[in-house]
Amino acid sequence: MTLELVSTTKSFEGEQRVYKHRSNVLDCDMTFAVYLPPAAVEDKVECPVLYFLSGLTCTHENFIQKSGFQATAAKHGLIVVNPDTSPRGIDIPGQDDAYDFGSGAGFYVDATEAPWSKHYKMYSYVTQELPAIIKANFPTLAGKQGIFGHSMGGHGALICALKNPGLYQSVSAFAPIANPSECPWGQKAFNGYLGANTTDWEQWDATSLVSKYASTPQELFIDQGSADNFLTGKQLQPEKLLAAAAPNDHIQTIFKQRDGYDHSYFYIATFVAEHIAYHAKLLKA
Amino acid sequence: MTLELVSTTKSFEGEQRVYKHRSNVLDCDMTFAVYLPPAAVEDKVECPVLYFLSGLTCTHENFIQKSGFQATAAKHGLIVVNPDTSPRGIDIPGQDDAYDFGSGAGFYVDATEAPWSKHYKMYSYVTQELPAIIKANFPTLAGKQGIFGHSMGGHGALICALKNPGLYQSVSAFAPIANPSECPWGQKAFNGYLGANTTDWEQWDATSLVSKYASTPQELFIDQGSADNFLTGKQLQPEKLLAAAAPNDHIQTIFKQRDGYDHSYFYIATFVAEHIAYHAKLLKA
Repeated sequence: MTLELVSTTKSFEGEQRVYKHRSNVLDCDMTFAVYLPPAAVEDKVECPVLYFLSGLTCTHENFIQKSGFQATAAKHGLIVVNPDTSPRGIDIPGQDDAYDFGSGAGFYVDATEAPWSKHYKMYSYVTQELPAIIKANFPTLAGKQGIFGHSMGGHGALICALKNPGLYQSVSAFAPIANPSECPWGQKAFNGYLGANTTDWEQWDATSLVSKYASTPQELFIDQGSADNFLTGKQLQPEKLLAAAAPNDHIQTIFKQRDGYDHSYFYIATFVAEHIAYHAKLLKA
Repeated sequence: MTLELVSTTKSFEGEQRVYKHRSNVLDCDMTFAVYLPPAAVEDKVECPVLYFLSGLTCTHENFIQKSGFQATAAKHGLIVVNPDTSPRGIDIPGQDDAYDFGSGAGFYVDATEAPWSKHYKMYSYVTQELPAIIKANFPTLAGKQGIFGHSMGGHGALICALKNPGLYQSVSAFAPIANPSECPWGQKAFNGYLGANTTDWEQWDATSLVSKYASTPQELFIDQGSADNFLTGKQLQPEKLLAAAAPNDHIQTIFKQRDGYDHSYFYIATFVAEHIAYHAKLLKA
């Protein structure tokens, strides 16, 4: 497996890099970004790894250009990896017809329905193939990884953690699509990628997974702006996940509502330092 | 004069706003961004104003989305205003032919050559019309304004200050085109906007202005990445400006070279907090 360095740019004394590689799981070429904090660049010190999963329409670029996370990642010494949001460079009829399905909208599931099932395996890519690549190529601290994300990617972070107890030592989400089986975005995606049998959706829905979770205790940090139009539009529904978690002793939730904040990167930028500090505390414990 | 609110987004407890308005000076509609720190939003406290001028190809959006300046502006209580980089929505033949002349490349001069002279008066817009609009519409602290910018806009900040002694209490520049009369970008722009007589260029060239400056003492904070390919490509030439300033007792320079940093917003984002703290110190003195 060869990594092709697309760019490396000095940022907060560390390096913001972008790589391309052939993904066996997705059967296409993929691009991802990795921020190496100063310690990892200069001293090759082993650092915890924090994955960020982006939302609908994003590529690897949005988070690295707009969130300002590098300031805090540098300070806490975290390697931060953010993948693309779907397979790319393939040719499936209809893949580019909508912003909320196909390209840029992989939803971090493993598709079972043709024609998507050949490439759309973002769940396996994010939880297995990409971490193996990161481990093989960067100075990572074994057994110390966290995951967070935004909107579709916030949900992705939650399911990656809930389906793999103990794999991530820290989990947080900005404005996640918390119960996709019960909202328009999620229903469209799950119908397309997983088929019409809604029972099959439960293993990919964070609220369903939370209600059944009975393994290693897991804390979930959920963040939500009160002026988010997708909250009022019922696409996000964090209250469903919180209600499912309440009676479950194996799930601890931290919920922070941010008065007046919307769904944009201005919102993420405002609170990303708090999230990274949260992850750093758990990953360096 | 009517301001049309395009958007307002909560950011670091303040508000990142975008406005449109009719510019009499430029004879076209213009868009600018203004960040109001929490104090200006909540308490209507009068705050110093800091102008940021962007570089070639930019609009008002790049700085507000990619620099992360809001965190520090909020902390120090500065209103930050960033205009567009040229007149827009007009129709001059050739205006869109190149990235470094015409649209997105106004160079913050007042053009004297037809057909540009009808609209391309970015210097007067930035130093006079826009500040009057800001003063009339936002809680600004009288006599307390600073200016900074990047690349073409770094040069713009320098000439706005040097041509108006005492108007700005703080001035800084990221990777400015320090001596445009002597580099390809500047020669192309000055030929087009000001004509072929290079004597006319001197009043618009920061290095020329520095060498002749004999008014209120002015400090200039110049910032430059060492791995900036436009530095090695001789477009920037900060050494020319520093050499011109050295024998002039009326100009004090602070020059910081940043080892390994390039010309991008990753570079700006890394040091914008330091610049804003510098401006805040002088503007709140």
